[in-house]
Amino acid sequence: MPEGYIHRIRVRYADTDKMGVVYHGRYFEWFEAARTEMIRDGGMAYSELEAQGISLPVMEARCRYRRSVSYDELVRIRTWMGSVDRAKLVLHYEVMGETDDAVRVEATTVHCFMDGRGRAIRAPKEVLAFFKRMVERM
Amino acid sequence: MPEGYIHRIRVRYADTDKMGVVYHGRYFEWFEAARTEMIRDGGMAYSELEAQGISLPVMEARCRYRRSVSYDELVRIRTWMGSVDRAKLVLHYEVMGETDDAVRVEATTVHCFMDGRGRAIRAPKEVLAFFKRMVERM
Amino acid sequence: MPEGYIHRIRVRYADTDKMGVVYHGRYFEWFEAARTEMIRDGGMAYSELEAQGISLPVMEARCRYRRSVSYDELVRIRTWMGSVDRAKLVLHYEVMGETDDAVRVEATTVHCFMDGRGRAIRAPKEVLAFFKRMVERM
Amino acid sequence: MPEGYIHRIRVRYADTDKMGVVYHGRYFEWFEAARTEMIRDGGMAYSELEAQGISLPVMEARCRYRRSVSYDELVRIRTWMGSVDRAKLVLHYEVMGETDDAVRVEATTVHCFMDGRGRAIRAPKEVLAFFKRMVERM
Repeated sequence: MPEGYIHRIRVRYADTDKMGVVYHGRYFEWFEAARTEMIRDGGMAYSELEAQGISLPVMEARCRYRRSVSYDELVRIRTWMGSVDRAKLVLHYEVMGETDDAVRVEATTVHCFMDGRGRAIRAPKEVLAFFKRMVERM
Repeated sequence: MPEGYIHRIRVRYADTDKMGVVYHGRYFEWFEAARTEMIRDGGMAYSELEAQGISLPVMEARCRYRRSVSYDELVRIRTWMGSVDRAKLVLHYEVMGETDDAVRVEATTVHCFMDGRGRAIRAPKEVLAFFKRMVERM
Repeated sequence: MPEGYIHRIRVRYADTDKMGVVYHGRYFEWFEAARTEMIRDGGMAYSELEAQGISLPVMEARCRYRRSVSYDELVRIRTWMGSVDRAKLVLHYEVMGETDDAVRVEATTVHCFMDGRGRAIRAPKEVLAFFKRMVERM
Repeated sequence: MPEGYIHRIRVRYADTDKMGVVYHGRYFEWFEAARTEMIRDGGMAYSELEAQGISLPVMEARCRYRRSVSYDELVRIRTWMGSVDRAKLVLHYEVMGETDDAVRVEATTVHCFMDGRGRAIRAPKEVLAFFKRMVERM
């Protein structure tokens, strides 16, 4: 299993619900932040990709909630690339506490490549090459 | 005090925080829904206004939290117009339970008129006339 | 395929992101509202279930995004029960426009039964009977 | 004007709306994160305060939106204490870009002290002393 990229998040009050733990829908915002920072760490800002007219909308999301995450916890999100080809990009995520490796939440998102007019496209060569380098690096 | 427009909202789990009540920042989403429905009820969809290149961004927001609102409560949001002129629009809100009139939360939002390029503008005549009719109607 | 329960939602500005469409993580709040109203329609408020010390946390969520949903659209969420036994409850969702039946988003959530101390439990008899009646009714 | 505490936030897609800028209600989550980190930096975790049965609910919030904040911007939130006495705590916030000092958004939140049963209380001596030291330090 690849080492992946670690992004840390501190749980806000706004993230919690009346159960006292992070609301299940909130994790998707965290995964968004995690993959954006992973891509930036790889040498490309997602906002630059968008400036070139290319976006990576989420086509599919899956999430398993194993153990809850509480208010004010500092968590690590490990993100890694599953696969990439000209049609889609698959990313995986694991949420863990700062000091223990028990996986609280695990997730997968599948993205396509989209042009500025909102149409699915084949990934341009240099974009595909960038993501392939990221897969190898991990 | 004008009667205003009543919009009802059922509190979701997602609206609550670990205190077990609605998160203070969430009310602004409710006020957005309330004013949008009030304007629609007055005869104009906010989305049509946008299609004409006019938007009403929030310039200022004020909110007082008097009593909390709990999960699964059905609340009434009373919305009314404070004033309108060519430069700005002032709206007021009160959140009450379904069966009691105690005000839980009260708020004010101040909006300017903006064109499609993001510049503050004077309200076009017909837009101003629409909002003036709404003030009178209340 | 069962007819299910229809819950309507109007898209708020707060639901959208800079792509101009509903943010992918937001749908989970809609599904929460939809299943809560479905259960209420079946004769039980989820808040009453909680008052009895039983909750239905999400253990797993899957979502496929087929077509985007835009600001101010009125959408229908069709919700139905896939299965229920003493260990878990499976629910399915489809998001459609008000006037067309094209499925924009489809999702599944899997829930366990939890007691007031946060431990997974077997569903109490009357709770299981309630959900079984709902499956048959659909 | 006191120097205050600087907390940095990177704008997520989830923070934006279809105008392409941060949704006005979202800033309250940022202010929550900013004041929590300011208090932690002062030597006390808000979660510890809660463990002692004391919370600081927002009684009032005011916000002025001067200039918008865009996706992927790194912003600085400057937070400082306005005043504190046994009945309430007043905090101020300013949102600025990473490289320029133009104030985009400015806000104030007013908090009371609450016990574990949800009743407003006078601030306990050591809690008041902590916040007084923070005012002086700034």
